[in-house]
Amino acid sequence: MSRGQMKLGAFLMAGGHHVAAWRHPDAHAPAGTDIDHFIGLAQLAERGKFDMIFVEDAAAIRERNPEMASQAGRSTSFEPLSLLAALAVNTTHIGLVATASTTYTEPYGLARAFATLDQLSGGRAGWNLVTSASELEAENFASSGLRPHSERYERAQEFADAALALWDGVEEGAYLPAGGDSFADRSKLHPLHHQGKHFAVEGILESPRSPQGRPIMVQAGASDVGKELAARTADVVFAASQTKAEAQAYYADVKARLGKYGRSTDDLKVMPGISPIVAATEDEAKAKQRALQELIPDAVGVALLASYLSIQDLSAYPLDGPLPDMPPTNLIQSRQQLIIDLGRRENLSIRELARHFAGARGHWQVVGTPVQIADAMEERFLDGAADGFNVMAPIFPSGLEDFVTLVVPELRRRGLFRSDYEGKTLRDNLGVAALT
Amino acid sequence: MSRGQMKLGAFLMAGGHHVAAWRHPDAHAPAGTDIDHFIGLAQLAERGKFDMIFVEDAAAIRERNPEMASQAGRSTSFEPLSLLAALAVNTTHIGLVATASTTYTEPYGLARAFATLDQLSGGRAGWNLVTSASELEAENFASSGLRPHSERYERAQEFADAALALWDGVEEGAYLPAGGDSFADRSKLHPLHHQGKHFAVEGILESPRSPQGRPIMVQAGASDVGKELAARTADVVFAASQTKAEAQAYYADVKARLGKYGRSTDDLKVMPGISPIVAATEDEAKAKQRALQELIPDAVGVALLASYLSIQDLSAYPLDGPLPDMPPTNLIQSRQQLIIDLGRRENLSIRELARHFAGARGHWQVVGTPVQIADAMEERFLDGAADGFNVMAPIFPSGLEDFVTLVVPELRRRGLFRSDYEGKTLRDNLGVAALT
Repeated sequence: MSRGQMKLGAFLMAGGHHVAAWRHPDAHAPAGTDIDHFIGLAQLAERGKFDMIFVEDAAAIRERNPEMASQAGRSTSFEPLSLLAALAVNTTHIGLVATASTTYTEPYGLARAFATLDQLSGGRAGWNLVTSASELEAENFASSGLRPHSERYERAQEFADAALALWDGVEEGAYLPAGGDSFADRSKLHPLHHQGKHFAVEGILESPRSPQGRPIMVQAGASDVGKELAARTADVVFAASQTKAEAQAYYADVKARLGKYGRSTDDLKVMPGISPIVAATEDEAKAKQRALQELIPDAVGVALLASYLSIQDLSAYPLDGPLPDMPPTNLIQSRQQLIIDLGRRENLSIRELARHFAGARGHWQVVGTPVQIADAMEERFLDGAADGFNVMAPIFPSGLEDFVTLVVPELRRRGLFRSDYEGKTLRDNLGVAALT
Repeated sequence: MSRGQMKLGAFLMAGGHHVAAWRHPDAHAPAGTDIDHFIGLAQLAERGKFDMIFVEDAAAIRERNPEMASQAGRSTSFEPLSLLAALAVNTTHIGLVATASTTYTEPYGLARAFATLDQLSGGRAGWNLVTSASELEAENFASSGLRPHSERYERAQEFADAALALWDGVEEGAYLPAGGDSFADRSKLHPLHHQGKHFAVEGILESPRSPQGRPIMVQAGASDVGKELAARTADVVFAASQTKAEAQAYYADVKARLGKYGRSTDDLKVMPGISPIVAATEDEAKAKQRALQELIPDAVGVALLASYLSIQDLSAYPLDGPLPDMPPTNLIQSRQQLIIDLGRRENLSIRELARHFAGARGHWQVVGTPVQIADAMEERFLDGAADGFNVMAPIFPSGLEDFVTLVVPELRRRGLFRSDYEGKTLRDNLGVAALT
């Protein structure tokens, strides 16, 4: 059966997705605050005809001890909506997906900001909706406090509905161009009257309808409530799966939920992360990986593992022993389970798991030649594990350059990826219908 | 006595500051959502060596009846922080001042967004702090509700203190460049421990210290509590004054408040609005003004006047009679008083006041030749009524082009305005010290 072509996202970070990227000789020292670095990455991804760039976020530092180098690929960071506004005017076709939280903002303000990004970019904006699990973020907004998982998602559902309704409240042609007698066609403006548990919004966006109908909605929720919200409201889900079987199960699960919302399976693209380390030969690729892994200090790897497991500390347990049993937490339950499963399946010690996990931060890592990487992607794409991939280059810009110059041509040769953009908007290129 | 040189801001809007700008033949039809239009305006102001561009904001439509053309110079609009991020990468020296409200956001999120704009622009960000008096905004965030003036300012004070402390919490060199062994110098990071009435914030910004020490703080508060907040925390105040005497009184009042906060009178720049209509001859300038005034329908002028007076309706009163007596409202008290005073002083009917007021939206309007406009500006600058001006061109781009090509050279010839930027940051160019 024909599966058409896969979708590709470029998950940008300052240094790179490998936890030790910033210590690598190729690291760009001021990457975290160098807008030209990000402009270069966005233009590189656009030359590769990627569907979108993707920027994650947390409104906080990432580690309680900021001296610790863990996850320093991020290092200092720009607020994503501002960063993507600056990239919008330096690109022409690539989608611009910013992460933003429903826990520390309000629907009108955020819907308005994404409407602006959408106008600035001519219909290329996407919103990766997150509910902010980090305690460090909660402390920065401590007047609100970290809410339990269920309450965060209840708020997120109401938030998403209000944002979608605000975007839909302005029909095409509602605001009239200057020079005429009237400023708006009131019959095409539909003020929202939302009175919910978490928000009350009575208003209209002062922004024309999106060139793509509405901004693209992206989610990465892997809990049951998260998948349900995605099935109801998202155009793209960005998943983290290690094995093909995990990826297939996730894919089937999410797609099976679409029907009850009157949506077809094509209307939601599942794009798991892939962390590719590519070189002309397999030996070179493995040497690249080793060079990165050797830059991870054990203390950093283990601290990062503990942080991802949402526990304070692993130092009471022997580095060469297995993970201890752990109670479930209020935080990102699915990620925790993924790490535990990986440790048990491959019988890894804490040290091994830390190093393994730290490298690709829990995502699927593929190390090899362009043909090997294209094989792996093609297999998951054809076998119902993915509609595309969010590419997490281990180091920027070199890791993304390698992917664009080595892997993309191989995918294209196989007919698996576009040679040019199909349309002008992100929605056109993703080929997803607007929700109604 | 030497007064040095004046500071200039370019107050950008989509169509123009004149209420009927959008109906003028020079109007740029899609101005409100055309980023290239704004890039052109910012670069034009930068060629004129303006200190800054200034963008106002309200997170709402401006009139309950969106069909009404009043204040349509704004028309549809971009969210300011996103707009200025896009302009930051298309300019090199001009300051970028965005309006943002303390009523519907939280200190960590907003301080972080301005830190990003500051990094994107190399130290050219400014924040115009407002407390959002509009009922239409309150309805968009109705879960919070419109708060009384005193409570809005109480929250604003706490908000400003928390934002300033977050910016000051990161010393120069706190975050280290990539490639080394450590990611941060913890001795240079000072987490905020703020527990206040409105906010609790325990955190550190993940952004290096501002290239200008901290973003520039701008305010326009004209109430007593507003002026006090400005004297304590602002680098620039943007005032609305009709007469020179009013402007001098405001200037003296604000400057006199600085001493008790240990600040010198040079540390706060007072920049009233000026709405210039300039042409080679006085007759031409007056003809330009007439052409604009004639585009204002009475219904629009009167509705706008009522809106600015914060009352529902003026239709019960004869158009050719005086303003009725009115009780003070919870909203922008000072603007209301300014309109009432103007009507009494010049014995204007509602129709006359509406038209007069609608044209320049309550700001000082000067119509004439470049020499006449420079004379008027020089007089207020030398007589202690202003340290500079926020220039509100009646129509974009032509009104700003006229000012840059006709008035700026005349100011420069008199030694009243710079020929080139003194420094790279907005703070350098304004010549104001960082608050400590």
